[in-house]
Amino acid sequence: MAQRIGFIGLGAMGSAMAGNLIAAGYHLDVYNRTASKAAPLVARGAHLCERPFDTAHGRGIIVSMLADDASLEHLVTSEPSIAERLAPGGVHISMTTVSPSISRRLAKYHEQCGSAMVVAPVFGRPEAAAAKRLWICTSGSAAAKEKARPVLEAMGQAIFDFGEEPGAANAVKLGGNFMIAAAMEAMGEALAMVEKCGVDRVAAMDLWSKTLFACPVYQGYGAAIARRVHEPAGFRLPLGMKDVDLALKAATEVAAPMPLASVVHDRFVAALAKGRGEMDWSAVALGASDDAGLTPK
Amino acid sequence: MAQRIGFIGLGAMGSAMAGNLIAAGYHLDVYNRTASKAAPLVARGAHLCERPFDTAHGRGIIVSMLADDASLEHLVTSEPSIAERLAPGGVHISMTTVSPSISRRLAKYHEQCGSAMVVAPVFGRPEAAAAKRLWICTSGSAAAKEKARPVLEAMGQAIFDFGEEPGAANAVKLGGNFMIAAAMEAMGEALAMVEKCGVDRVAAMDLWSKTLFACPVYQGYGAAIARRVHEPAGFRLPLGMKDVDLALKAATEVAAPMPLASVVHDRFVAALAKGRGEMDWSAVALGASDDAGLTPK
Amino acid sequence: MAQRIGFIGLGAMGSAMAGNLIAAGYHLDVYNRTASKAAPLVARGAHLCERPFDTAHGRGIIVSMLADDASLEHLVTSEPSIAERLAPGGVHISMTTVSPSISRRLAKYHEQCGSAMVVAPVFGRPEAAAAKRLWICTSGSAAAKEKARPVLEAMGQAIFDFGEEPGAANAVKLGGNFMIAAAMEAMGEALAMVEKCGVDRVAAMDLWSKTLFACPVYQGYGAAIARRVHEPAGFRLPLGMKDVDLALKAATEVAAPMPLASVVHDRFVAALAKGRGEMDWSAVALGASDDAGLTPK
Amino acid sequence: MAQRIGFIGLGAMGSAMAGNLIAAGYHLDVYNRTASKAAPLVARGAHLCERPFDTAHGRGIIVSMLADDASLEHLVTSEPSIAERLAPGGVHISMTTVSPSISRRLAKYHEQCGSAMVVAPVFGRPEAAAAKRLWICTSGSAAAKEKARPVLEAMGQAIFDFGEEPGAANAVKLGGNFMIAAAMEAMGEALAMVEKCGVDRVAAMDLWSKTLFACPVYQGYGAAIARRVHEPAGFRLPLGMKDVDLALKAATEVAAPMPLASVVHDRFVAALAKGRGEMDWSAVALGASDDAGLTPK
Repeated sequence: MAQRIGFIGLGAMGSAMAGNLIAAGYHLDVYNRTASKAAPLVARGAHLCERPFDTAHGRGIIVSMLADDASLEHLVTSEPSIAERLAPGGVHISMTTVSPSISRRLAKYHEQCGSAMVVAPVFGRPEAAAAKRLWICTSGSAAAKEKARPVLEAMGQAIFDFGEEPGAANAVKLGGNFMIAAAMEAMGEALAMVEKCGVDRVAAMDLWSKTLFACPVYQGYGAAIARRVHEPAGFRLPLGMKDVDLALKAATEVAAPMPLASVVHDRFVAALAKGRGEMDWSAVALGASDDAGLTPK
Repeated sequence: MAQRIGFIGLGAMGSAMAGNLIAAGYHLDVYNRTASKAAPLVARGAHLCERPFDTAHGRGIIVSMLADDASLEHLVTSEPSIAERLAPGGVHISMTTVSPSISRRLAKYHEQCGSAMVVAPVFGRPEAAAAKRLWICTSGSAAAKEKARPVLEAMGQAIFDFGEEPGAANAVKLGGNFMIAAAMEAMGEALAMVEKCGVDRVAAMDLWSKTLFACPVYQGYGAAIARRVHEPAGFRLPLGMKDVDLALKAATEVAAPMPLASVVHDRFVAALAKGRGEMDWSAVALGASDDAGLTPK
Repeated sequence: MAQRIGFIGLGAMGSAMAGNLIAAGYHLDVYNRTASKAAPLVARGAHLCERPFDTAHGRGIIVSMLADDASLEHLVTSEPSIAERLAPGGVHISMTTVSPSISRRLAKYHEQCGSAMVVAPVFGRPEAAAAKRLWICTSGSAAAKEKARPVLEAMGQAIFDFGEEPGAANAVKLGGNFMIAAAMEAMGEALAMVEKCGVDRVAAMDLWSKTLFACPVYQGYGAAIARRVHEPAGFRLPLGMKDVDLALKAATEVAAPMPLASVVHDRFVAALAKGRGEMDWSAVALGASDDAGLTPK
Repeated sequence: MAQRIGFIGLGAMGSAMAGNLIAAGYHLDVYNRTASKAAPLVARGAHLCERPFDTAHGRGIIVSMLADDASLEHLVTSEPSIAERLAPGGVHISMTTVSPSISRRLAKYHEQCGSAMVVAPVFGRPEAAAAKRLWICTSGSAAAKEKARPVLEAMGQAIFDFGEEPGAANAVKLGGNFMIAAAMEAMGEALAMVEKCGVDRVAAMDLWSKTLFACPVYQGYGAAIARRVHEPAGFRLPLGMKDVDLALKAATEVAAPMPLASVVHDRFVAALAKGRGEMDWSAVALGASDDAGLTPK
């Protein structure tokens, strides 16, 4: 008989990931605040629960893919307790992009309740999630990760483990997203400079992204930034800012200054002040164009 | 009969490039300030000249690969005039990493003397030069570039053209080197943060450079930065700083602010103050470790 | 008969301020978490309460001088409710350096409970507080400020009002503290530069602070920074960092980027990583010396 | 009989300073590229020379107040040599705001010619110059400074000496101007933040500049920045940028990073890109308003 797994959070990412679990033969008990988003999964056999609590059971596994620290904390610590419901021995696979500190706290909470939390944030957009091409970072207790492994393998193309410290995988995820944002700002600045030196910015980006920087981040975002096309949003700017701010907050907590992250944070704030909150987060690179007097009205 | 070409500047890059021209069948008239460095090329048939001037002749081609703006300006404008010697119709292929403004000025100077300058800086280290794997950026008059093309093809794996404005190719080269430096700083910051969050920094870099950032810059420099191994130097730190400073200077001249470049500049200055002038330019990333209290003594 | 006033929070600042209220003829009901700190005030006639709640009464006035947002929120919103106890018509004068957003929220809370909050942060050290030389910024409802005025006048040398928006005075206080920190960083950088140019840094600071910058901030902190003497702490570095971070947070919430504040934040983080948490906040200026290779071991 | 002194450079500053020398009883031999600007001084008895060279004589004193490094270098090193003309024992009082390195080089040049250079940049605007209220920084050989002293005393209200290293006084001048620019940026950021928190920015600046920052820089520039009134220019923005860039260049040469100076540099560049080159340099603070979405069109 198919293993039952709980799945909480059916946004674009969560829905795609849950779909892969169904495809892999799991039976899903799903929950989403806006229940209607569960319809496609229910059509494929998932069972819609009324409360997050109902997706869990002793020795079981639940997966959560939520919005932020607050929603994750609420899921884990509100009553009736989902962390206790998983006891004894159940595992909560927490895949939201959150701060290392909340993971540390909630992992301990699970432990005290007799369950365990595996921290497993992912790199990849909804399309990658749908295609099972996510890269998954993990941290948490070895036994719990062992139990979670088949579930994770059903959702991603590769798993990278970072040990038992619960927040470790979050730090790696946030570091990666910061590096993407820093690369976008660097492209924005380099392109503003070359454009004002008489260079076709699309051609310059084309060269860089075919040679030194022949990788997804520079190719995908580079093309958008060179053309200043930031709509429709693949990943909305305020969400990108949230991740960079989480990286800065984590860095501040452990006393590691990140001056590039600060510059990028300031750019995001300016982008919001200029009304770019609905654009893709690559619009952060428009700041360099603005300050060079280049941004078309 | 083999075409004669002048080649001026036989450092590690220039020697490797000149070697490929010999291999392609050109006869070289070479010059280097320190004549002894020409020996391996002379052994392969090159003719060693006493003055740069002697490497040039009317309707001919010379290639220069020098240290900086000053050495290039001296080559072109000192007497007897190499720019006049190339007239009528000769071409100077200028491959040094210099500022767009010096190229603009010297291209005009050549024009007034009846010769032409093709600006053709390259991406790639001496190993890449030796293997004919350089990426070459070009700018300058179309006719001169046409004449230069076979020579350039003998030295690189691909040519990217940026039009007739002489400084354009320099801007693209400087923008690329700035982006490398910005990426190194970003890696340094992200790694300091994750390390203090309990993550193995080598493992984190490994993940990032196999996924989002699967490209030469992040793979090569990332491994060095994660391990804090910056000696021996592949490209000395003061030279990397020179390029970032040229990018900043070019940007200032055309009124395009580059705040990330400013942060990186400040890091290079601090690296020099801390005695890291003999290290590889990737040592710029040590600043983030220093400020997080992580750099081993 | 003397008016009774509640006073909560008897740190160095609060004790000095409460002392001036006694001197002005008020009868104080005081509370402090560590009760022993109340002894000097009790010796002068103050009545020590067991709970913050007990310092308040209907139509009365309480003054709070606490540590941060969390302690203020706890005071106002924990049960039994001090905000209700002040009803009808009582006034809470909130003098802690906190974020504008917490003041907005707690002012509304008071209003719903039938009392009012006057926000009244101060500029000045404990010595200035003891000497009644504080500068007080106010915001909040006009009627409540009118009622609070005599109390505030008994504690400071001047009152500057910023209207009815509750968080306004907090913003002004945070902006001022940010400007002090920015000035300290600027001094640190300028002094590092002149020192390495062969100038006596004490003499340079002396000139600047006698001429262009002949004001308390540059004179007091400038002398400390020029001599690199940051102990004993007048205002501990983590507290200074807290205020700059509150300014950044407030700025982020209203979408106003503050790049200098970001640089200063990064310097504070580095100072903590380097073990300077017990020094005065002027030690933030050591970062510039460190990066110039100047800081003595 | 009155001592003859040469005076070269009759801009707004130079004319006011030269006027004070006449008032003090000196006879002036003046030179200015645009001769017509000398008319008011000639009307008061000054003798107009055709060449800078003609203002100098053996054992004499000349004062120069020029535009920048290049104009000073041209004055000293072009033929016929003014540095030789002053020999033996003459003194050149160099009052232009220039880099420490040019002063070092030109002081040596004078020495080799048998004359001496006293470096004596000033703080103060033309109005202060006219009122003899300049603050003068000096560096150079003790004997030459002794000879220059009466002349300097006739032009300023106080002299601050920084020893024999020729560039020292320049470094102090540049450090001071950098600190002014940093203060202006800090005001711009703090005001943007408080404005968006609902505060009247003029009132906030008024408080700060009457209390913590009760000094000329914050009072004068603060009022302009709070009101966003940057025309007419007292000191044009490109000139302010020139000084900050000289500070950065000097700092780079001696390996002292200045991250705040870098931020301010970037702001100046953006101001130029946005067409603010004719405004007062305090318009650098508009950048913070722009990025917060506050600058009126």
